[in-house]
Amino acid sequence: MTNPAQNQILGILGGGQLGRMVIQAAINYNQDIHILDPDANAPCKDIAQAFEVGSLKDFDTVLAFGKKCDVITVEIEAVNTEALQKLADEGKKVFPQPHILKLIQDKREQKQFYQQHGIPTADFVLTADKADVVSKKDFLPAVNKLGKEGYDGRGVQILRSEADLEQAFDAPGLLEKLIDFDKEIAVTVARNEKGELIAYPAVECAFHPTANLVEFLFAPAEISPEIEAKAQEIAKDVILKLDMVGILAVELFVTKSGEVLVNEIAPRPHNSGHHTIEANFTSQFEQHLRAVMNWPLGDPSLRCPAAMINLLGEDGYSGEAIVEGKEEAMAEKGVYIHLYGKKLTKPFRKMGHVTLLDESVSSLKAKANRIKELIKIKSNA
Amino acid sequence: MTNPAQNQILGILGGGQLGRMVIQAAINYNQDIHILDPDANAPCKDIAQAFEVGSLKDFDTVLAFGKKCDVITVEIEAVNTEALQKLADEGKKVFPQPHILKLIQDKREQKQFYQQHGIPTADFVLTADKADVVSKKDFLPAVNKLGKEGYDGRGVQILRSEADLEQAFDAPGLLEKLIDFDKEIAVTVARNEKGELIAYPAVECAFHPTANLVEFLFAPAEISPEIEAKAQEIAKDVILKLDMVGILAVELFVTKSGEVLVNEIAPRPHNSGHHTIEANFTSQFEQHLRAVMNWPLGDPSLRCPAAMINLLGEDGYSGEAIVEGKEEAMAEKGVYIHLYGKKLTKPFRKMGHVTLLDESVSSLKAKANRIKELIKIKSNA
Repeated sequence: MTNPAQNQILGILGGGQLGRMVIQAAINYNQDIHILDPDANAPCKDIAQAFEVGSLKDFDTVLAFGKKCDVITVEIEAVNTEALQKLADEGKKVFPQPHILKLIQDKREQKQFYQQHGIPTADFVLTADKADVVSKKDFLPAVNKLGKEGYDGRGVQILRSEADLEQAFDAPGLLEKLIDFDKEIAVTVARNEKGELIAYPAVECAFHPTANLVEFLFAPAEISPEIEAKAQEIAKDVILKLDMVGILAVELFVTKSGEVLVNEIAPRPHNSGHHTIEANFTSQFEQHLRAVMNWPLGDPSLRCPAAMINLLGEDGYSGEAIVEGKEEAMAEKGVYIHLYGKKLTKPFRKMGHVTLLDESVSSLKAKANRIKELIKIKSNA
Repeated sequence: MTNPAQNQILGILGGGQLGRMVIQAAINYNQDIHILDPDANAPCKDIAQAFEVGSLKDFDTVLAFGKKCDVITVEIEAVNTEALQKLADEGKKVFPQPHILKLIQDKREQKQFYQQHGIPTADFVLTADKADVVSKKDFLPAVNKLGKEGYDGRGVQILRSEADLEQAFDAPGLLEKLIDFDKEIAVTVARNEKGELIAYPAVECAFHPTANLVEFLFAPAEISPEIEAKAQEIAKDVILKLDMVGILAVELFVTKSGEVLVNEIAPRPHNSGHHTIEANFTSQFEQHLRAVMNWPLGDPSLRCPAAMINLLGEDGYSGEAIVEGKEEAMAEKGVYIHLYGKKLTKPFRKMGHVTLLDESVSSLKAKANRIKELIKIKSNA
């Protein structure tokens, strides 16, 4: 008769916008959430049932935090996986599992994992340091990635020709064949402990030319049913081969010849799924909750076409954030503004996002450009 | 360039589920909300930026609370309107305006207001006390309403024949002609300070046979376009004649002869609009926020058919709440559970609601009955 799950505490490592949107979903289920974040002003601070300031990378801090929770998850990969492993060993539910976080923390291991498990991905070679990259210059044009510490576009650069070798990363990394892709898409999959597995429809990403962050996203992706099926199958294959519980965003390249290759994965709610709050029957944030709490998974299908725009801090502005154009944008039909509660802006900082709903992807393209020009995050400084 | 509204504090008198759902909408706009509620465990306590325990009926408490806010609104009508009037006189924005709350607090004044302004409503006579009701027995069958202190079905009873006169209210009230209605519907309207005015599509209410609370709600209402237009026109007329800013739920009877009569009104988010969170382009909670903050109003139209079920505490159970059947319900497509964070249940207490989305109202009717049987709020005691 009783439902023991309803009194469990879910701990999240990280209290940024992803955690904030998970909490927004959790409120409807009376699901208490405890947050650990190094920033005392992190976006979750006012809405978590408990908010603790501390390092996500410190063994003792993460261990002590986790001991107070029943289920532990993350909204960022850069966390102390040894502490999480110890918590898992002691019987806590930790999803995604610590070994997956460890794998994701190192792009070299990630690529080798794909190779070993027959998951299609761009060809690559491992590189030990800058000299090693230079010695492998025949592999160019390539993407040079740092093994560790890359995030939000950092630690990734394109080396097109020998002239670019000067800036090669001088630390363990890899060179990945530069893919002349037709589209970049993403498929989110989720899996719970019972083994239920769902995949969201593919979305199409358009990246910011300089910041290497998703600028626009359109759902559904304009791809053939065959490519859609292939992308969903690959994404499901990745989460199964990882034996992962939780939500996994799989970013993929669609090549001009119709190949589908895994680019990057993120074992948590991801920027490519923000539109699901309004556009899908179950949002990625609620799905994450359902997956890690071992609740039944929700219907991932799309209710209507959508676009998503990241609201990045304008270049040239740092300081207390001012949102320009909010009311003009709110006056339009099908415009959903999400601000992340960050007091301070800086160039390209993720300050919020906007989801747009409309009849078709083509009408959304014009609307997305217009709304993007309307809303600007600046500061007085 | 700057948007001063973004740093304004919105104070809400009442921290129950309606306030809670307003906060859920406000998070997306970084809109800080302060709550005053007499219950230290009210549903808003963990998610408001500031949560103060105090009486909503005490002049000094409400005044002191309001002084710390820029805009003040309510989620319940039973508040100290003198304090609100003083705050308004001192330049605070108070929406709905205090005189409207005062009017709503007295059903006698409300009915006279309709009469004076040509708003169609059931015929009535004022009654001073029980003896006065008895002396007006020719008016039966009628609804006997207490002037003040009625809420959630309390203070309202049907007097069908002389035998019922024994239980007539012995305080100032009224007798209203019992309407042999075909349907009960509700239209929510919203208006901001700039004068923008929108109306939601009519919804159809089905009441619980004994608790006098909405049991099921279906959107859209199954009524003719003419009745729909008439209902929307009447609801707009009411908010305009009240000169009200905020959101107003207008409950209406549709008689067998096609008349549309105002039954009750509520100048706040209302049970008849809960489905708008998932079913409409703008939820009533966000609309309330937009209206009182003088932001542009949002599109009220329906995205797809919906039903809403109130989750009331089961009769016979009091104590720490246990939600039965939650996971079975979550496994179904288009089922959205909203729990209100109330630790303790009692018979007929509003503990949550469920919104259902589906292709048509007819498919929703079967689904609503099934889900209602599935989810039960009980306790171990």
